[in-house]
Amino acid sequence: MQDIKTYIEENKQRFLDELFELIRIPSISSLENHKPDMLRCAQLWQKLLLEAGADKCEIMSTAGNPVVYGEKLIDPKLKTVLVYGHYDVMPVDPLNLWKNPPFEPKIEDGKIWGRGADDDKGQAFMHAKAFEYMVKTNQLPCNVKFMLEGEEEIGSGSLYDFCEEHKDLLKADVILVSDTSMIAEDVPSITTGLRGLGYVEVKVTGANRDLHSGLYGGAVANPINILCQMIAQLTDENNHVTVKDFYKEVYQISDAERSLMAEAPFDETAYKKELGIAELHGEKGYSTIERVGIRPSLDVCGIWGGYTEEGAKTVIPSTAHAKISFRLVPDQDFEVITERFMKHFESLAPDSVKVEITPLHGGYAYVSPIDMPAYRAAEKAYETVYGKRPVPTRSGGSIPIIAGFERILGIKSILMGFGLGSDAIHSPNENYPLHQFFKGIETIPYFYKEFAK
Amino acid sequence: MQDIKTYIEENKQRFLDELFELIRIPSISSLENHKPDMLRCAQLWQKLLLEAGADKCEIMSTAGNPVVYGEKLIDPKLKTVLVYGHYDVMPVDPLNLWKNPPFEPKIEDGKIWGRGADDDKGQAFMHAKAFEYMVKTNQLPCNVKFMLEGEEEIGSGSLYDFCEEHKDLLKADVILVSDTSMIAEDVPSITTGLRGLGYVEVKVTGANRDLHSGLYGGAVANPINILCQMIAQLTDENNHVTVKDFYKEVYQISDAERSLMAEAPFDETAYKKELGIAELHGEKGYSTIERVGIRPSLDVCGIWGGYTEEGAKTVIPSTAHAKISFRLVPDQDFEVITERFMKHFESLAPDSVKVEITPLHGGYAYVSPIDMPAYRAAEKAYETVYGKRPVPTRSGGSIPIIAGFERILGIKSILMGFGLGSDAIHSPNENYPLHQFFKGIETIPYFYKEFAK
Repeated sequence: MQDIKTYIEENKQRFLDELFELIRIPSISSLENHKPDMLRCAQLWQKLLLEAGADKCEIMSTAGNPVVYGEKLIDPKLKTVLVYGHYDVMPVDPLNLWKNPPFEPKIEDGKIWGRGADDDKGQAFMHAKAFEYMVKTNQLPCNVKFMLEGEEEIGSGSLYDFCEEHKDLLKADVILVSDTSMIAEDVPSITTGLRGLGYVEVKVTGANRDLHSGLYGGAVANPINILCQMIAQLTDENNHVTVKDFYKEVYQISDAERSLMAEAPFDETAYKKELGIAELHGEKGYSTIERVGIRPSLDVCGIWGGYTEEGAKTVIPSTAHAKISFRLVPDQDFEVITERFMKHFESLAPDSVKVEITPLHGGYAYVSPIDMPAYRAAEKAYETVYGKRPVPTRSGGSIPIIAGFERILGIKSILMGFGLGSDAIHSPNENYPLHQFFKGIETIPYFYKEFAK
Repeated sequence: MQDIKTYIEENKQRFLDELFELIRIPSISSLENHKPDMLRCAQLWQKLLLEAGADKCEIMSTAGNPVVYGEKLIDPKLKTVLVYGHYDVMPVDPLNLWKNPPFEPKIEDGKIWGRGADDDKGQAFMHAKAFEYMVKTNQLPCNVKFMLEGEEEIGSGSLYDFCEEHKDLLKADVILVSDTSMIAEDVPSITTGLRGLGYVEVKVTGANRDLHSGLYGGAVANPINILCQMIAQLTDENNHVTVKDFYKEVYQISDAERSLMAEAPFDETAYKKELGIAELHGEKGYSTIERVGIRPSLDVCGIWGGYTEEGAKTVIPSTAHAKISFRLVPDQDFEVITERFMKHFESLAPDSVKVEITPLHGGYAYVSPIDMPAYRAAEKAYETVYGKRPVPTRSGGSIPIIAGFERILGIKSILMGFGLGSDAIHSPNENYPLHQFFKGIETIPYFYKEFAK
């Protein structure tokens, strides 16, 4: 399979041209006005998968954005790999912080820059090109199915029903996903755990209209002050979440496992320097790797209320709002936690305000065992290309549908991520290093070879 | 002077047409892109004052928006009244809550609707029309000067220097101002105290870029959570402000004065109903009237950070921001309090974030004694028109320049306000009842008559 390198070298400009076409479509799933872009992006994926060698590829409707499903079934007796990815991307605000327009991809400093360059257009597209290589060179060792959804960044709402309705179509031996990161470009790793997620929007209402802060200041509840007080009470001085029973079902890992985790390479000074922070900030009694890997967390992702333009306006607004998310770990049920959060949050409100809470989405945590054949195949593939055995890691991020796949389809997923921590996914200036993109394409066929054995 | 009613009746449509012209100019001083509107509005005022009978009227430049100065000096031996008002208005957001476009004034339900209808175009314009009446009917009993500024809503930044530079020009026996409210339309009152004001913008910075809340959540300080915690700590469980020495210089009124204040009509049930709130919220140990009249307060006027559009985005933002104001009472120096606030606020920040604080503006509190001749003249004027002796009240609002006038020009101000609590100044759907507008025009000449004696 040494010819994979040659194949990439001979076709690299075309690979990039095709990926750039995907990035140019602003398929932001959380914004309604991008609806037409979702279909355009799905149609482009359909075209690209058919050109790569799929025997058939369909755009299948769901209650929300469509799913792109493609396949090449060469022999029912052989194993089947189901490749999962998503064609939707995160919003791009604050736009003024992008050095280059987010949907006009370009290459600079050895990296592809643009929204979706890594997450997940760049990473998912590596699978299309590795597949193309195996088909064109007659080296495809098993059946392949592709499933690309358009709602991952908003919680995969429609994909659960889609899986329920198409269990037969989606039958496979393993689900292969590239939507995570490696520890570093010279430290390959495979993600074996993902945190779950809960996400709610809260609204605190005071008076029925905005009030003059002089005439009413001091006499009437200010919903911004109250919201801040309520949010402040969600964590204690040790940065523990105070929501009643928040930690009740948290899976307690053994001391032995904690010791193993502590061996993973982590340079605190470099970490702080890269983020530009003087101090870390997290739950007392846990290391940084534990805080993002095995402990749940709570973050306000957005807050707004009152006057936010230039200069001064003296006002007590009628309402204040926040978007609050929690990352969950194995054995925490996001619906149960969301309910506990809502009950707790409401209890923090004084009688002088009204509170409304809207759950937006959620998902379960996921753990994959490192002794299953698919994991061993992925391990071997990385080792072949990177020259090092990959480290199993728990990611702080969430891909809620991965737990859904296991529950609905009964199939485990292998998270072969090639992203890097510096890729700025979900942030301005998202990027994906060219060498990771090409090494990913190179690694994937080795997984198929090993797994098909 | 019974002919004032006839004069108003015969000219009312023209009065309204002229006022509507003023309201149609969106002279929002806090927004840079409204700069040309400021000059247009000043020019219209110049035209209207000259038409009303001023001998001269000039647009005088300042470091910021120009001041409109007009005068009619009939005899140096007579007293001089300096009328002060402002032609700038508050921003109009949230625009979607306006039933009628803010700068397209109209009359409905006996009220004038539009931004500035009360504050302060409607109220200041009453003085122009009362002046017109006295000039046209040869009843002007003293000299009159008009000074209209364009920065009241942003702290009158340039007017302090303007007063310093034009002390002679502005010489007068009293400053007459209509920029406050009466207790109710059947309970005339004169504002004898105004709160001072401090206003700062704060910025909390965590990491040097927005972060994925999964990959970093729990390990890195979230500036929104931190900002909320810092704001929550600014007040205690009794709604006392915790800033060190915040109350140190607060003038303590006597028990006798508190008893007098308690006699002012206040219907708590009606107050709560009108605001749509179940409970009041304020400093323990003080009544509502005391909370807004004689006690300082602290309010967050605006807050923003992270993702604030529709749907969910999982992000730990790099920065979070808030605009924080405090209303101050006599003997509190806004510069001293602002400094104490800054020191205190900075001390609340953990090492995991950086804090920047920018003071935006401020002003001193003001008290006018009720035994001076000008107060007695105003009292008599209200009594003549409303049939009731007006109640002296302390307003929670601030007109910082009023204390500045006393300090720089050595002239006391009389706050003859005709606004009502329901006028929604600074809010969507600002309005000004027609009967208050016309009764104001009717009342003002009686003040001149009494005061000139």
